[in-house]
Amino acid sequence: MKIQGFSAAAVRAGIRYKNRLDLGLIYSEVPAIAAGVFTTNRVKAAPVLLDIERLGQGKAQAVLVNSGNANACTGDQGMATARDSSRMVATQLGIDEEMVQVASTGVIGEPMSIIPFEQAIPELVDGLSPDGFDDVARAIMTTDTVPKTSSRQIEIDGTLVSILGLAKGSGMIMPDMATMLCFVMTDAQVIFSELQAVVRIGVEKSFNRITIDGDTSTNDMVLVMANGAAGNTWIDEDNPEGQSIFEEAMLEIFQDLAMQIVADGEGATKVVTVRVQGARDEEGAMSAAHTIANSALVKTAFFGEDANWGRIIAALGRSDCYFVPEKVSIYFDDVQMVMNGVGMGIEAEDACSAVLKKDRFTLTVDVQDGLEVAEVYTCDLSVDYVKINADYRS
Amino acid sequence: MKIQGFSAAAVRAGIRYKNRLDLGLIYSEVPAIAAGVFTTNRVKAAPVLLDIERLGQGKAQAVLVNSGNANACTGDQGMATARDSSRMVATQLGIDEEMVQVASTGVIGEPMSIIPFEQAIPELVDGLSPDGFDDVARAIMTTDTVPKTSSRQIEIDGTLVSILGLAKGSGMIMPDMATMLCFVMTDAQVIFSELQAVVRIGVEKSFNRITIDGDTSTNDMVLVMANGAAGNTWIDEDNPEGQSIFEEAMLEIFQDLAMQIVADGEGATKVVTVRVQGARDEEGAMSAAHTIANSALVKTAFFGEDANWGRIIAALGRSDCYFVPEKVSIYFDDVQMVMNGVGMGIEAEDACSAVLKKDRFTLTVDVQDGLEVAEVYTCDLSVDYVKINADYRS
Repeated sequence: MKIQGFSAAAVRAGIRYKNRLDLGLIYSEVPAIAAGVFTTNRVKAAPVLLDIERLGQGKAQAVLVNSGNANACTGDQGMATARDSSRMVATQLGIDEEMVQVASTGVIGEPMSIIPFEQAIPELVDGLSPDGFDDVARAIMTTDTVPKTSSRQIEIDGTLVSILGLAKGSGMIMPDMATMLCFVMTDAQVIFSELQAVVRIGVEKSFNRITIDGDTSTNDMVLVMANGAAGNTWIDEDNPEGQSIFEEAMLEIFQDLAMQIVADGEGATKVVTVRVQGARDEEGAMSAAHTIANSALVKTAFFGEDANWGRIIAALGRSDCYFVPEKVSIYFDDVQMVMNGVGMGIEAEDACSAVLKKDRFTLTVDVQDGLEVAEVYTCDLSVDYVKINADYRS
Repeated sequence: MKIQGFSAAAVRAGIRYKNRLDLGLIYSEVPAIAAGVFTTNRVKAAPVLLDIERLGQGKAQAVLVNSGNANACTGDQGMATARDSSRMVATQLGIDEEMVQVASTGVIGEPMSIIPFEQAIPELVDGLSPDGFDDVARAIMTTDTVPKTSSRQIEIDGTLVSILGLAKGSGMIMPDMATMLCFVMTDAQVIFSELQAVVRIGVEKSFNRITIDGDTSTNDMVLVMANGAAGNTWIDEDNPEGQSIFEEAMLEIFQDLAMQIVADGEGATKVVTVRVQGARDEEGAMSAAHTIANSALVKTAFFGEDANWGRIIAALGRSDCYFVPEKVSIYFDDVQMVMNGVGMGIEAEDACSAVLKKDRFTLTVDVQDGLEVAEVYTCDLSVDYVKINADYRS
C-alpha cells in the first residue's frame, strides 16, 4: 500500500547480523502532525528519551528505526549514537534534525556503534520509495516470524484518506514483554489534539489489552504521523462525523496489529480471548482478565489443550476482582465447564477439550456479580517459548 | 527423626493413582497447641475453610492429608468429604472431631469421593508409628521429585526440644504457585501467642520469599503443632532466651524447607538468590526483587546460562522500586556486570557466564539510592517446566 506524500526504505546495515534488513526509514515530504505513546518503564532507551523530547513540538517528518540493538542502558554513548544517526538522516534529507524520530529494538545493554549508520544512511535515503513500507516492516522484526502491517481507506466528506500501520513484537505472551514498535502513517488532515486522543484511546483498547499495564520494555513506542496530503476537510471538533470515521479506522488498525502480535507470540500455537464478565467494577474485571491471561499455569494448560479450569479459578482468586466463589461460571467458547463454582463433569470437559484444540477460542469467566466486562487477548505458553528465550542472544 | 508424643503413617488409598502413598496422618497423643497460616486466595479449598474455622480454638491433635485431589471448587459435597473424613479419623482415634485438621493437594475441581477414605482410614490409624513421618512426606508429593523434611534439636533451659518439619510444593517458580503444604511438629512447651507469632514471622521470612505475596493456590497452608511432651520451661515472654532459641530454630526449619521447594521447582536446574540492595525503602526493594525473580524472560535467560542483564534492568524498571537508571550496578555472585547503568563489556560477560553455569548463585542489583535490602529465592524457567505443566492432569 502507498500513502500520499510518504516514502520508505530498508537496508542491510549489519548492526547485529549480516545480510538481513535491519535499518528502516519512513519519510514524509512535509512535516507531519505526530503523536506518540512511549514505554512507562522507568528505564527508557536512548531513542525513547530523544523522541519524547522532540515530540513536544507535535510534529515529525522522518522515523529511523533499527533492529539488532535496543540502544538501551548504553549511557552517554548510546544517546550520542541516537542523536548522531538522526542528524545524518536529517542532513541527507535536508530537513531539521528535530523532525527525526528514532526507534530501536533488539538486545538491551550492548553499545551501539554509529559506524553501521554512517555507512548505510546514504543508501537508505537513496532507496526511499512509495513502495518501501513492506521492507521496513521486515527490517524491524526480531523474534517475530512474520511482518505485520494493516491498512484502511476511509472517506472523509467525500475525500479518500489512507492509513497504513506497521508493527513488530512477539514476546508479550508473558507479563514481561519484548519491545513493541508501531508506526502508523496517514495522509489525513487532522489536528494534533485529535490525533493525540486517537493514539491514546486506541492504544488503551488494543496494545494495552494484550499485556498487563506497566509491563513494558525499555523501547516500546507507538507513533502516528498525519501529513495532510489527502486534503480532506480537517478532522477536528467541528467535524464530528469525520472524527468518528477516522477514530474507528485507526482503532481497527491498532487492534488488527495487536492481534497479529499475539498470534505471533513467541512459540504460540493458539490465540485466546480471555473475557471476564459480570464484575462489580471495570477495574476488577480488567484485573481478573489480566491475571488469568498472564498465568503461566493457565497458559501451559492451553498449550496442553487441557480444560484445567482449576488453574483459571485459582488465578481469578488472586486477582483484584471481587467475586463470590459459589457464583462463578466458566465457558470455553459456548461450552459451559463450571456452574456456580463447581465443575460440570467429564462430559463437559470432553466438549471443552474439543474447543481447546482450536487455534482460536474465547474463555469466558462470568462472576455474576454485576455488569462490567473486560477482554484481554493472549496466547499459550509453549516449549518453544522457553527455547526461544533461553537462546535469544546466542 | 522422632518427636515425643507424635506418631504418623501413610497408606495407598488410591485417591487418584493406584499404588502410591497418597494419604497421611499425623497424630499427637495429647491435644497440641496449634497455629497456622492459610492461603490468601479468595477461592479456598474445603479443607482450608474447615481448618480455619477449627483452628480458632488454638489446638489440634491430628492432621489428615491427601494428595491426588485438592478438594477445591467442589461445593457442598467437597465440604462434606472434608468433614466426614475428619470424623472417621476422630472416631478411629477416639478424639474430638474438632481437633482434626485436614489438608489436600492435587487437581482442583474434581469431586472427591469419601470412599477411598472410608477404606483406608482404619489401616492408616493402625499404622501410626513414631517413625512414620518420612512416609507422610512422600504421601504429600505431587510434582515434587523428592520428599522434603527438616529437623532441629535445641536446648531450652537444659531440656532437649525437638522440631520436625515436612513440606511439599514445587510449582512456585512462576508468579502462580502449585499448592504448598508444610507441617511442623515439636514437643516444645510453648504458649499459643508465641507459637502464632513464630509461624507468622517465620512464613514471612521463608515461604513468602519464594513467591509473590498473594500468589497463592487454593490449598496452601503451614501448620505448627506443639504438644509440650519435652516438658521444658514454658516458652513465653518470661523466657526471652527460650523464645529466641525456639524462634531461630523454627525459622531455620522454615527457610530450609523453602529452599528445598525452590530447588525442586518444576523443571528447575538452578537456584538463584535475587538480592536488591541500596533501595530507598524496603517495599521498593521487595517489589524489585519479586519482579526480577518472577520475570519469565529473566528466568529463561538463567536457564540459557545467559548473563542477559538487559532483561534484569527492564524488569527492575517496571517494579515499584524508585531508582535512577544511571546509578544501577548488577553483579552475578561477586562478578560485576553493570556499573552505573552501563554494561561492562565482553570480558565481564564471559566471567558472569561462568557464574551462570553454577547450580546456585546470587544475582545482586544495587540501585545505590539508600540502605534497604531484600532477598528472594527463585529458580530458572526450563523447557521441562512447560512440559510438566502442559501434561499435569494427563
